[in-house]
Amino acid sequence: MSHNSFGRLFQVTTFGESHGPLIGGVVDGCPPRIALGESDIQPWLDRRRPGQSRFASQRQEPDRVRIVSGVFEGVTTGTPIGLLIDNVDARSKDYSDIQDKFRPGHADYTYIAKYGLRDHRGGGRQSARETAMRVAAGAIARKVLGAEVSVRGAVIRIGEIAADPARWDWAEVERNPFFAADAGVVGRWEELLDGVRKAGSSIGAVIEVRASGVPAGWGAPVYGKLDADIAQAMMSINAVKGVEIGAGFGAAALRGEQNADRMRAGNDGRPVFLSNHAGGILGGISTGQELVVRFAVKPTSSILTPVETVDRQGRDTEIVTKGRHDPCVGIRAVPVGEAMLACVLADHMLRHRAQCG
Amino acid sequence: MSHNSFGRLFQVTTFGESHGPLIGGVVDGCPPRIALGESDIQPWLDRRRPGQSRFASQRQEPDRVRIVSGVFEGVTTGTPIGLLIDNVDARSKDYSDIQDKFRPGHADYTYIAKYGLRDHRGGGRQSARETAMRVAAGAIARKVLGAEVSVRGAVIRIGEIAADPARWDWAEVERNPFFAADAGVVGRWEELLDGVRKAGSSIGAVIEVRASGVPAGWGAPVYGKLDADIAQAMMSINAVKGVEIGAGFGAAALRGEQNADRMRAGNDGRPVFLSNHAGGILGGISTGQELVVRFAVKPTSSILTPVETVDRQGRDTEIVTKGRHDPCVGIRAVPVGEAMLACVLADHMLRHRAQCG
Amino acid sequence: MSHNSFGRLFQVTTFGESHGPLIGGVVDGCPPRIALGESDIQPWLDRRRPGQSRFASQRQEPDRVRIVSGVFEGVTTGTPIGLLIDNVDARSKDYSDIQDKFRPGHADYTYIAKYGLRDHRGGGRQSARETAMRVAAGAIARKVLGAEVSVRGAVIRIGEIAADPARWDWAEVERNPFFAADAGVVGRWEELLDGVRKAGSSIGAVIEVRASGVPAGWGAPVYGKLDADIAQAMMSINAVKGVEIGAGFGAAALRGEQNADRMRAGNDGRPVFLSNHAGGILGGISTGQELVVRFAVKPTSSILTPVETVDRQGRDTEIVTKGRHDPCVGIRAVPVGEAMLACVLADHMLRHRAQCG
Amino acid sequence: MSHNSFGRLFQVTTFGESHGPLIGGVVDGCPPRIALGESDIQPWLDRRRPGQSRFASQRQEPDRVRIVSGVFEGVTTGTPIGLLIDNVDARSKDYSDIQDKFRPGHADYTYIAKYGLRDHRGGGRQSARETAMRVAAGAIARKVLGAEVSVRGAVIRIGEIAADPARWDWAEVERNPFFAADAGVVGRWEELLDGVRKAGSSIGAVIEVRASGVPAGWGAPVYGKLDADIAQAMMSINAVKGVEIGAGFGAAALRGEQNADRMRAGNDGRPVFLSNHAGGILGGISTGQELVVRFAVKPTSSILTPVETVDRQGRDTEIVTKGRHDPCVGIRAVPVGEAMLACVLADHMLRHRAQCG
Repeated sequence: MSHNSFGRLFQVTTFGESHGPLIGGVVDGCPPRIALGESDIQPWLDRRRPGQSRFASQRQEPDRVRIVSGVFEGVTTGTPIGLLIDNVDARSKDYSDIQDKFRPGHADYTYIAKYGLRDHRGGGRQSARETAMRVAAGAIARKVLGAEVSVRGAVIRIGEIAADPARWDWAEVERNPFFAADAGVVGRWEELLDGVRKAGSSIGAVIEVRASGVPAGWGAPVYGKLDADIAQAMMSINAVKGVEIGAGFGAAALRGEQNADRMRAGNDGRPVFLSNHAGGILGGISTGQELVVRFAVKPTSSILTPVETVDRQGRDTEIVTKGRHDPCVGIRAVPVGEAMLACVLADHMLRHRAQCG
Repeated sequence: MSHNSFGRLFQVTTFGESHGPLIGGVVDGCPPRIALGESDIQPWLDRRRPGQSRFASQRQEPDRVRIVSGVFEGVTTGTPIGLLIDNVDARSKDYSDIQDKFRPGHADYTYIAKYGLRDHRGGGRQSARETAMRVAAGAIARKVLGAEVSVRGAVIRIGEIAADPARWDWAEVERNPFFAADAGVVGRWEELLDGVRKAGSSIGAVIEVRASGVPAGWGAPVYGKLDADIAQAMMSINAVKGVEIGAGFGAAALRGEQNADRMRAGNDGRPVFLSNHAGGILGGISTGQELVVRFAVKPTSSILTPVETVDRQGRDTEIVTKGRHDPCVGIRAVPVGEAMLACVLADHMLRHRAQCG
Repeated sequence: MSHNSFGRLFQVTTFGESHGPLIGGVVDGCPPRIALGESDIQPWLDRRRPGQSRFASQRQEPDRVRIVSGVFEGVTTGTPIGLLIDNVDARSKDYSDIQDKFRPGHADYTYIAKYGLRDHRGGGRQSARETAMRVAAGAIARKVLGAEVSVRGAVIRIGEIAADPARWDWAEVERNPFFAADAGVVGRWEELLDGVRKAGSSIGAVIEVRASGVPAGWGAPVYGKLDADIAQAMMSINAVKGVEIGAGFGAAALRGEQNADRMRAGNDGRPVFLSNHAGGILGGISTGQELVVRFAVKPTSSILTPVETVDRQGRDTEIVTKGRHDPCVGIRAVPVGEAMLACVLADHMLRHRAQCG
Repeated sequence: MSHNSFGRLFQVTTFGESHGPLIGGVVDGCPPRIALGESDIQPWLDRRRPGQSRFASQRQEPDRVRIVSGVFEGVTTGTPIGLLIDNVDARSKDYSDIQDKFRPGHADYTYIAKYGLRDHRGGGRQSARETAMRVAAGAIARKVLGAEVSVRGAVIRIGEIAADPARWDWAEVERNPFFAADAGVVGRWEELLDGVRKAGSSIGAVIEVRASGVPAGWGAPVYGKLDADIAQAMMSINAVKGVEIGAGFGAAALRGEQNADRMRAGNDGRPVFLSNHAGGILGGISTGQELVVRFAVKPTSSILTPVETVDRQGRDTEIVTKGRHDPCVGIRAVPVGEAMLACVLADHMLRHRAQCG
């Protein structure tokens, strides 16, 4: 029951801190005979990498992944896949002045409350740097899922400005620095983020991740529900404060007639749903429709505005968090959210196969 | 990795279907020497029990719990606590006409897609009847947590009508059939629900559950996060489509300065937070503030309006779901949400004690 | 990580004490659509039942199992299978005089050391009565494994008297009260056990359990080894003090040439092994040969000879354990050992299918 | 439920193959604020290291461990401890001729049967090289257990020649290349092993590991038994075929009066046991006596004698396993067995603290 593992049959364990020599991960339970190389993982890491636009941290990390076990002659062997990424551009001096002060919104105080000490360099284990390993594991999960299952995400809201779902275009996502699926919102977000960045401030966002090609039947009733595991996965991402599936919080305002996804006979014997308020999951089990997941990311807690806080000695003080931070950490959460959904799906694919053949 | 277990050290396993002879649960890992009797559990079950107002299912279930193991001479022994509740008022005939049709919004189709068969009587294992066991387990979790920790919930929205947080009064919650903390909203909800009920319809709701008295330090980084486990717990409740902590989805619209919970030195050496956007959790670990969790419940899928669907033979048809259903299943989700939060907290209390002493 | 659960995908959880109202079990993860009824389980329970010969406890327990969930219209549904057996012939008064004394060889002292209290009636949770649930779960595991896999056991030694492996006859096992596969040893064991019984003493035994029909490939390397899980399973049975696979402790005396199981090409493309020192497992994975497991059971600790001990107040005293005890508890361990092996195999069958399809 | 993880709260996960770039491990759940550096681990690795006498493999591996996470300023932080050991002296060419043949006694065939492929270089994941990580984890477990708990082991039998328990001297263990606690047996084992080595053969052994200072109360009833977890741990070590606790298989030959460990009142209120047939565990829970565990190791399967086998194409052939092998792999199993016992104890220490405070 490791605190640092995720998944049951497709299990990901990570280790490493922001300013240690490296971060690492172990993917256990991966089926054998899947073609896998570093070039299958690197492109996904590159999408998450900082330093690629003025709207992300300027830390320069090549995030070059090495596969150190579990792959032989280009295919998985069924044994644990060890993954290592060196920390290259860790500047510990940036953090030396915050050694004794608790940054509001960060886990500085809670780590001390729990463990009595913490690795304060760059947030240590709390750093979002750990999410690089999630993205690497997610790349492997995609290989397990195969080409039929596609997992994609986009930012749908930054601050008060929402993308227009009617203009959704997946191709647009890779063309702008916001992972926006709506070309029309890009200019407005640029303007918003430039203002936020110049003010030394930060802002929150909402991300939507969808999976298509998931067959009906994955998941389980009661506690092993697919949506429950997705909720856990998304809420485990740094700075996430909310998760919803399908109609989500909006379902609370609906009548039963509005919410029910009507079914009609399909050509292949399987039903066709006339809507997708369920977000592809009923009773914890996939319906065969597209999975639709949204999660909310709070504004980066590292800001240049001085904020009241206390120090380790319990005295009142103020703090300004210098360093190289994302003005909207929600943007780079897109590849992370995709990766987590891919991992949950790979896990449930194996779990379903175990019980139901 | 049972699909039907929840928690790691304080672990709850449930079994049983809506129309079988009984539903059961096993609570394992409970500390020894805790005073426990059926009278500690029954009041919580009575709160969840159907048939108590016209706004809930008219099924008459006494929900009388029996402790069949793990307690000796009035105290827990440290061995697994077996719990049984007989199913008394199961009317299988009510369900006979839906044996072959998939009820939209229910898990009928997904169970068939997964298992190739299902116990269609009253929803079988998908029935919300299973939540009685969650409430029973939650009552034990409360005993483990002790008197310092208090877990309470309320409905804060039904349909479009929200309670006023400014008029929040915990004492009010037990005085109305909606678990409303705002006396002013009760009349409006009565009117709304009477309309819904008479129309044979149903409606969604939002529930807020809070825990006070939780010390700083419970939880864990990365995957064993307290909020990740809470999200999983809440999303595992029937009909829940969204979960949020603290500012939740609202955090996406905030700036870093707004979201940061400023800290001041407290009298006891511990910091005092000047706000609680974090909802009592930072970096997956409790801050010592009140935990604030909200979840959205979709409208009951069983409605009297005919809805298009298909049958097991893949043919188009319609269905009307008769039976004794809650017009707003979100109302009775309050004690269930409280119970799940209590279980997560008891689990993390033990997990924290294990690692940190 | 319940202390009272066994298995990962085919998971068995038990609860209940010797002198409570009942003992119960939950089997989770069972594949759906397997024909199952109480009559599939009862015969296995009847083999373990006390009171059937003068060489077993005279407690009269019908051990009538009830399936209370997870089966619908005669087949498993994929949901947890709840099992209950009422305790009928519990005579708590038999145990009242040992309430305050620790019985040497029993877990009385260790339960107190751990929990600070214990249910002393009939050993409470430590009672071998719990093994009835293992046998019931094992019966379900056999159904999961199917007819190709056969799990059988026999007593091969009682005290100093060993059965002759050269005269092994499975048919003989059901014809004598010792589960002996060697007809020639039965008379000698009768004589030995009559002496032990009349002396108010007890004696140890060695049991061998074998599984045939297990395909090559079940198990996993390193920590999820098939033999490691078998060792855990057998050592978890009450009174077991040793476990070995294949040549077992005898392997320590062999040379590499002697121990190597030579292989020849078989007719079906799979190798034929010329011996089975491995006991059917290499590197934690099944070879396709017969699995051969042995375990040692200590003599029943309940004896009529007065034994020096201490009481709960820490004072020297003596104890005589009256009651209805098995003079050789190893005999009734045969169906339990079979059941545990069947459970481990069913679990690994599902685990293998999950990862390798 | 990783196949490559061990332990529940003190959890060890390993990865890496014999001839990959490195082997790695992650220790999760370690309590914070424990002084730990590489120099605490390296001496234990040095004891297991090959190439130190003519009775061990001549592979020259410095086995230099690096701690890459979880330790900050010389103490554990409570986050996962990453451990890496580079593979330095891997000679893949030694193994090229066995690429297509199954070595009897090795897991070559079973890996192929399971996964359809294998990393044949040096045994890949099946290699005993993985046990270096167990030893490293065990060194951390010792720090968790503290100075009161001492875990030590010795070889007690090689082939037919047993050490004399009456001459047991722990100090002797570090003075000879066999981890023998009996100085009198060393010369005879030298002679035996020289003969075995010159014949290109190998031989089995029995190891005894003991833990002193374990308080009464660790462990759990039924499935989470301390002895069951020890059995699993030991059986998971490469080449182990049997495990026993206390009197072990010898208990089968005892009468109840002989086996009962009589108790007398001790000076500190705790009982003193007059013997230790139980090996320090009753009902799955520690008694406060010394834990006594023995396990049997089969002869190294890599021998120079040609042995009949088949190849991957299913054809009859012969094999001679050249390379640098231990003539008695049981010798170097001593530090591994100690490490596994230390890990099980650290895990149960935390598990006990979780439930019982």
